[in-house]
Amino acid sequence: MGNVIIGQSGGPTAVINASLAGAIKAAKVNGIEKVYGMRHGIEGFLKDEVILLDDYFQDMNDLSLLKRTPGAFLGSCRFKLPKAKGNEAVYARLFELLEKYDIEYFLYNGGNDSMDTTLQLSQYAAAHGSNVKFMGIPKTIDNDLPVTDHTPGYGSASKYIATTMKEIIRDNESFGDTYPYIAIVEIMGRNAGWLTAASALSKAADCTGPDLIYLPESAFSVADFTTRVKDLCQYKSSIVIAISEGIRTADGTLVCEQSGSRGFTDSFGHKTLSGAGKVLADHLALETGCKTRAIEFSILQRCASHLASRTDVNEAYDCGYKACMAALHGETGKMITIGVPEREPYVVNYDITDVKKIANKEKMFPQEWITNQGTYISEDYLRYARPFVIGDVSPYFSGGVPKHATLSANTNFLRNDKLGYKDE
Amino acid sequence: MGNVIIGQSGGPTAVINASLAGAIKAAKVNGIEKVYGMRHGIEGFLKDEVILLDDYFQDMNDLSLLKRTPGAFLGSCRFKLPKAKGNEAVYARLFELLEKYDIEYFLYNGGNDSMDTTLQLSQYAAAHGSNVKFMGIPKTIDNDLPVTDHTPGYGSASKYIATTMKEIIRDNESFGDTYPYIAIVEIMGRNAGWLTAASALSKAADCTGPDLIYLPESAFSVADFTTRVKDLCQYKSSIVIAISEGIRTADGTLVCEQSGSRGFTDSFGHKTLSGAGKVLADHLALETGCKTRAIEFSILQRCASHLASRTDVNEAYDCGYKACMAALHGETGKMITIGVPEREPYVVNYDITDVKKIANKEKMFPQEWITNQGTYISEDYLRYARPFVIGDVSPYFSGGVPKHATLSANTNFLRNDKLGYKDE
Repeated sequence: MGNVIIGQSGGPTAVINASLAGAIKAAKVNGIEKVYGMRHGIEGFLKDEVILLDDYFQDMNDLSLLKRTPGAFLGSCRFKLPKAKGNEAVYARLFELLEKYDIEYFLYNGGNDSMDTTLQLSQYAAAHGSNVKFMGIPKTIDNDLPVTDHTPGYGSASKYIATTMKEIIRDNESFGDTYPYIAIVEIMGRNAGWLTAASALSKAADCTGPDLIYLPESAFSVADFTTRVKDLCQYKSSIVIAISEGIRTADGTLVCEQSGSRGFTDSFGHKTLSGAGKVLADHLALETGCKTRAIEFSILQRCASHLASRTDVNEAYDCGYKACMAALHGETGKMITIGVPEREPYVVNYDITDVKKIANKEKMFPQEWITNQGTYISEDYLRYARPFVIGDVSPYFSGGVPKHATLSANTNFLRNDKLGYKDE
Repeated sequence: MGNVIIGQSGGPTAVINASLAGAIKAAKVNGIEKVYGMRHGIEGFLKDEVILLDDYFQDMNDLSLLKRTPGAFLGSCRFKLPKAKGNEAVYARLFELLEKYDIEYFLYNGGNDSMDTTLQLSQYAAAHGSNVKFMGIPKTIDNDLPVTDHTPGYGSASKYIATTMKEIIRDNESFGDTYPYIAIVEIMGRNAGWLTAASALSKAADCTGPDLIYLPESAFSVADFTTRVKDLCQYKSSIVIAISEGIRTADGTLVCEQSGSRGFTDSFGHKTLSGAGKVLADHLALETGCKTRAIEFSILQRCASHLASRTDVNEAYDCGYKACMAALHGETGKMITIGVPEREPYVVNYDITDVKKIANKEKMFPQEWITNQGTYISEDYLRYARPFVIGDVSPYFSGGVPKHATLSANTNFLRNDKLGYKDE
């Protein structure tokens, strides 16, 4: 039996390291001698940047701290492995490194692009008689992977968005005695509106939730938007609006592009956006004369482990565990998917799905869950998403600030004062 | 014995309602018949916007939820009471309303400007033979009130800033295999750098903390800044920088004013700033060729009750309680101040101070605590601030999202499922 190597790829989530913890646990339970980690995913692996995870994690206390750590513990990358055809040298090098470390099980944790990497590698292995198994572990706050009911990372991002949205609504309601206060909250999502939809989870007996919610899946009309906000100003002193960074007008123009703000393009050709909230806040200030403010959740929505959802942490851990188990049972070129046979009470099961069905595909927010002429979200969505945010995971505080597992921290740090994690 | 009225003023904090809870408790313990709340502070009071708080809070369960609620429960205002001279009608109206509700004790929770309101009212009362007592309760995330060791609200904002800064550092470290990633985090603080300094509390055995910290108290040099970041790029793949929104160059120009971004001016003549982080991130992208990102904590740093500091919540509660007690004992024109005779172990005591010593004054961050040519914070500051962030207060979750006390929620909501607050 060979060794296991694990890589993390793409944007981190609050629970990306919970999947790593699950995979490590499964490997050790099954007697794998060495569990390696790639630094910075496949990009670092190609440069032979490999660490031995056994040096860092020796028992469940170590893994418990890892589960509570945001960011990619191993380092991540935004590197898309080229197709084998024409890039034989890259693949030869990669399989040479797998042999060097006696790797038999290769686990890759990421989203659509990472599943493409898993696909390419498994196909190359099959074509070249390699017995290395390649398994994908789902991960993305965007919740845009097909087949799986939802993705690890989405639940914690949703809990952060719903909680913070509710806190913003409380703060915004504090004023507005003289004229309405308007807050526009910009949430991640280039093409898919799943994250922005989660803002509706702030709605409860004690909270109206956002007044308007705009997703990229629905064409944005500046005129209609302005009219609706002016109407709200007639009877509300506090108006809070949730928008996706990727909202576009009917002709396909990004709202943020109207700001003249320069965008970055990452190596997958994705445009990095920012500023739609600012554009609309400035627009409304002029149109309504109200005090307006743009708030961007930025990367906070993907790294707020202190507010992770317990449901999400556990599912991320299980996906890592099960991906490793599947590889050990000989599966390759597949990804763990989550099924939800019942939502109330919430029941999940796990399956394994061919990565071909997942790689490079995006699952959009369903049109039938967008209501009020593209300005709100239906109860069907809330029924779908509510279970994902249930439960919390207390951080291990040290000096009042959550403690993290890091590569650079002395490894003794990870293991000292095991009984004293909660110092308060 | 007359009744009590309480008002909240200025920007909310995560613990502003803990002070309200403390004041209500003290009033009820001492047999005050009616405890009133002003809607939107003195501004709403002048319009006779008054509510009876006894309708909302009947026992400690109700007050416990209030302590966990961000935003100003009563509504706040940014209204500065004019001086009595020349505005006699305003004062006459105000004291008429006090009589209408048989108010003998007037408690006002706010910062420098609110203490000016307390001062004006107490002086007017003394000059006109009124027996109404006016007591101030300190409140500001800015920590810029004189006399008091620190202010309620600062500890929770600091805990949020330190925790979130640490999570951002984790996230930012995930990348940087090819070229450094630079994040600039913009923190509130027009003139005083207390909040930005709190970013240094993220430093621990598992975290380097921010690489550079810039406060408004120290002149900002774009050239020196650029050189320092370029140096860091030589040996670090992840660079995270904390800046105050109010940083200025030696000639007094705000860095954010270089962006051409329009500012608001509130009714106290304060300029509302934003954008210094964005200006510097764009500048560094051009200068270094690195991936840069600006992150603004915006109002999240003042409304994140889900991450409040227990030390801060308790002190805010105590300040409210003690202000009410002081008024009942006949004190007027004063504010509760916090003293810290010992920092390790942390010991606090409370005093009452003439508001004249506090109103309209700002306590700046000490120059001797700014180190490395204006780019970092000393260990002395950390010793000062560490106790403020200790301890957490678990939210009462409902459906995975914290529950809040609100005026608009059915009052039964506040009181139902008392034993079921933690539904998970």
